[in-house]
Amino acid sequence: MSERTFDPERLTEATHRSVSMAAHIRVTVDVAEPGRVVLSMPKEGNTNHIGTIYAGALYTLAELPGGTLFSTTFDPQRYYPIVKEQNIRFRRPATSDVSVEMTMTPEEAAAIAAEADANGKADYSRTVDIVDAAGTVVAISTNHYQMRTHGS
Amino acid sequence: MSERTFDPERLTEATHRSVSMAAHIRVTVDVAEPGRVVLSMPKEGNTNHIGTIYAGALYTLAELPGGTLFSTTFDPQRYYPIVKEQNIRFRRPATSDVSVEMTMTPEEAAAIAAEADANGKADYSRTVDIVDAAGTVVAISTNHYQMRTHGS
Repeated sequence: MSERTFDPERLTEATHRSVSMAAHIRVTVDVAEPGRVVLSMPKEGNTNHIGTIYAGALYTLAELPGGTLFSTTFDPQRYYPIVKEQNIRFRRPATSDVSVEMTMTPEEAAAIAAEADANGKADYSRTVDIVDAAGTVVAISTNHYQMRTHGS
Repeated sequence: MSERTFDPERLTEATHRSVSMAAHIRVTVDVAEPGRVVLSMPKEGNTNHIGTIYAGALYTLAELPGGTLFSTTFDPQRYYPIVKEQNIRFRRPATSDVSVEMTMTPEEAAAIAAEADANGKADYSRTVDIVDAAGTVVAISTNHYQMRTHGS
């Protein structure tokens, strides 16, 4: 793994610049390390017709760490990610600010990069929990990504 | 089925009021009839890090017709919907404005309402295609909803 360090505030700004929806829902990157990121989102401004956080905002909070984790774990000059499929299950109404953690071990990262180096692409999945302020899991999302090498 | 008629423009405004994300992505309700709705979304303003429509915007476009169809097909004084789970598969990059149609037959609607009347709730699913300006299916989403009766 690289010894690179990351500034969560700068990553938040970069996320808002590249995806306007991220700015709209006011996602923040709270932790950004190789192999581990934590993002959060306020309830305020993100509610639906029944006053809980809207499904599309929860979906987006579950998807975005894929890009953040990618940027802290892989070389973005060499690789980029796309999302191929995502399944999100809503367990409880989200009635407070929420957060999500996504992780990847150095061994997992090395295996994904090796496959992309060999084949130009590599499929991988992450399952994340969205938790509310009390620690309750309000949604579980399984995200299927594909790493691609630039130019392949 | 009811003989009610619906003004797509008013439904667009109502959607934007109840879900700020719908306003942000500039969803419009284009067709609103009992048993059939069509919604669309511009590419502009909804792109990601590679210049195609962001996954979270596509997800939201796929989810919102559930509420619109509900409002044109069922009695909102008696019932309301929640989304329990959603699986979206991205088939092609979305490089133009996109739209989605969601339908329900009178027989399906009657069966769902009858179950909710009997049990206070009824699960049902809709699978929708998001199509681009050329008619290409860019994403397929299966949405699992639950109808509930108010007060149950």
